[in-house]
Amino acid sequence: MGMPKLFVNGARLKETIETFADYGRTPNNGVTRLSLSAEDVGARNYFRSCCEELGLTVTVDDMGNMYGTLAGELGDRPPVVIGSHLDSVKKGGRFDGALGVLSGLEVIRTLVDRGVKPKVPVTVMNFTNEEGARFEPSMMASGVLSGKFDKATMLAKKDADGIAFGEALAASGFEGDEANRLREATAYLELHIEQGPVLEKEEITIGVVDCVVGMVCYEIEVSGESNHAGTTPMGMRKDALFAATELIALFREKLGSLDDELVYTMGRLNVWPNIHTVIPNKVVFTLEARHKDEGVIAQVTDIIHGLPEEQSGCSVKRTKLWGRDTVWFDQAVVGAIEASAADYGYSSKRMASGAGHDAQFVASYLPSAMIFVPSVNGQSHCEEEFTPYEDCEKGANVLLGAVLGILERA
Amino acid sequence: MGMPKLFVNGARLKETIETFADYGRTPNNGVTRLSLSAEDVGARNYFRSCCEELGLTVTVDDMGNMYGTLAGELGDRPPVVIGSHLDSVKKGGRFDGALGVLSGLEVIRTLVDRGVKPKVPVTVMNFTNEEGARFEPSMMASGVLSGKFDKATMLAKKDADGIAFGEALAASGFEGDEANRLREATAYLELHIEQGPVLEKEEITIGVVDCVVGMVCYEIEVSGESNHAGTTPMGMRKDALFAATELIALFREKLGSLDDELVYTMGRLNVWPNIHTVIPNKVVFTLEARHKDEGVIAQVTDIIHGLPEEQSGCSVKRTKLWGRDTVWFDQAVVGAIEASAADYGYSSKRMASGAGHDAQFVASYLPSAMIFVPSVNGQSHCEEEFTPYEDCEKGANVLLGAVLGILERA
Repeated sequence: MGMPKLFVNGARLKETIETFADYGRTPNNGVTRLSLSAEDVGARNYFRSCCEELGLTVTVDDMGNMYGTLAGELGDRPPVVIGSHLDSVKKGGRFDGALGVLSGLEVIRTLVDRGVKPKVPVTVMNFTNEEGARFEPSMMASGVLSGKFDKATMLAKKDADGIAFGEALAASGFEGDEANRLREATAYLELHIEQGPVLEKEEITIGVVDCVVGMVCYEIEVSGESNHAGTTPMGMRKDALFAATELIALFREKLGSLDDELVYTMGRLNVWPNIHTVIPNKVVFTLEARHKDEGVIAQVTDIIHGLPEEQSGCSVKRTKLWGRDTVWFDQAVVGAIEASAADYGYSSKRMASGAGHDAQFVASYLPSAMIFVPSVNGQSHCEEEFTPYEDCEKGANVLLGAVLGILERA
Repeated sequence: MGMPKLFVNGARLKETIETFADYGRTPNNGVTRLSLSAEDVGARNYFRSCCEELGLTVTVDDMGNMYGTLAGELGDRPPVVIGSHLDSVKKGGRFDGALGVLSGLEVIRTLVDRGVKPKVPVTVMNFTNEEGARFEPSMMASGVLSGKFDKATMLAKKDADGIAFGEALAASGFEGDEANRLREATAYLELHIEQGPVLEKEEITIGVVDCVVGMVCYEIEVSGESNHAGTTPMGMRKDALFAATELIALFREKLGSLDDELVYTMGRLNVWPNIHTVIPNKVVFTLEARHKDEGVIAQVTDIIHGLPEEQSGCSVKRTKLWGRDTVWFDQAVVGAIEASAADYGYSSKRMASGAGHDAQFVASYLPSAMIFVPSVNGQSHCEEEFTPYEDCEKGANVLLGAVLGILERA
């Protein structure tokens, strides 16, 4: 790439991650930092002070998204933006979201340290309410910026205590100006923990994320007949649980032969009347499946629609709960990330994100891509969530290299 | 049998069943008559007046069981007892329990009408709290009489409102004398609806019940690992629901080949965390199996204990919740019922009771047996519960004939 290779300060990154984790740290070393809570506001204020200390211009938009911008030499050109979110789920981890924001901060700190003057501005961003753990839906603010969600509807969303998102935003002091919204960018990059086990299991350091997979989610309702468990011969039963387990086996057989990268889950299953002495008359379960290739998702849909109307004497109904198409990231940004990983000598692989991220909404109007680093045991959204600090550092280096690569071509 | 054949008054039996159903009748023509509720006390008072009107001696024991006795010519000899219960489950039917008591009443009414003087007393009984719907356990009073349950423990059992059984019994006015307990009998007979579909499906009028089947009930706990449904490849999952459905299929395969009369049910199944986007990490389900032959139940137990300790990466634990041995009825009483059905020209078959009844406790110390009549669609414990009145009448005739047959030999 011609430029001398730069490295972030890994010790500083670790310290920053741990300092931020103090805002909402749980007794088990996790984090509870619900969006716009006192803990989140504390982290936001500290993030602002970190940016200001670094000489960045801090702005806030009308959804509470924060921007810390290092000016570019060529003036007011579309920035390279590094973003993620500082909010967490209840009893979540220290890395999900925070790592992306704080590695962005570390990248800019490194640029400032080394006296690198970027041609175009470099911005570190904190998206509001990515988790949706306090105010549904998740990815709320990036959804509004990308036009997926209606702002007024989002402002009216209430938390469990009846507080509206709009009220909480106003009270937080982080209700900024619509003019500050992210509207254009040279590139948007987001570093995130994988939240899955693949990188760790395959001993690969960097995931070069080229898409967020599409998905469908159906609800399957199986209706049979409740009768006394002691008095109804097996041949005269319409046992909804037996029928449901047969359908699950059928799904597994058919879906299992489609594609190795397909994932499918029956995560929710309820039985009625759910009494040990009564034959179940109803079972309702969800089937969600994710794959980057819409052709594979179409095959899943075909399999679901090809379900028998009747299974072992029970009727079968299917209802589509929702679906979303695969979001493909920008090939130039993906390429910059891949080249950067190679440049640092880190092992990498192209992969899909199975989980949703702000980047998938941003990608609808700005050239975007993501970097994954390993999650120990694939765990996230729990206090055990962990990514070794050396992997965080390597991820931040790849981010730095990718930003420099993009700046070079800007 | 030598005696002229007697017939009960079917119209009167129907009217009596419907009159009793007014005590707690639901809008859908079912009955809610929880033990010792106002509705039950109303039915008890009316039952007492019916008995007194007929010239029977009415006594009540310390568990609230009621006895209406027609004196025997030979004096104070062990009576022939016809019993069942007047309490119902919530939104239950008009027949479960009531049919047995009221057909007993009808049998005695017929004896009185026809001037039949029995050699030994004939008693119609109403057992307290057979259903266990208000105060657990079911068959509470017959359990105390047979020494299966401790009286003090039972008196302390509370309903959902915190009222103890003992309090409710005292308040009902039906707390009688321990000396009145059923202690000896020439025979105990109980007519009951089948609560299963066999008689109706096979177009047989009378079930000659020779046993109450034994059963075992286990709880199976399958523990896996929760992970994100979108980010965890199929090969790296420990999905407790997948493992549980495999175990259920395995059970069905193994249990299905044991014996045609074996019934087995996984009536309760719960999934954790039961969220559509999360791989289940725990599934707990019950497996109960019933069969009259203890050898078959032993095979079921062997199958459960032969379960793999691990299934598809998940650990499997089994816990025995309870079991009971098959209760065999008295062959002489069973024979009297069978002979009576033949005498009336009704089709009959020997069968096992898959459900529990007071007769199974009484059978532990008195010669007992049961008569079943068909249940439409096998339904019971619901408002739709129904037995055609002509079948009720035929059942009462068989009861009458069996009582006369037993009296003849007494």
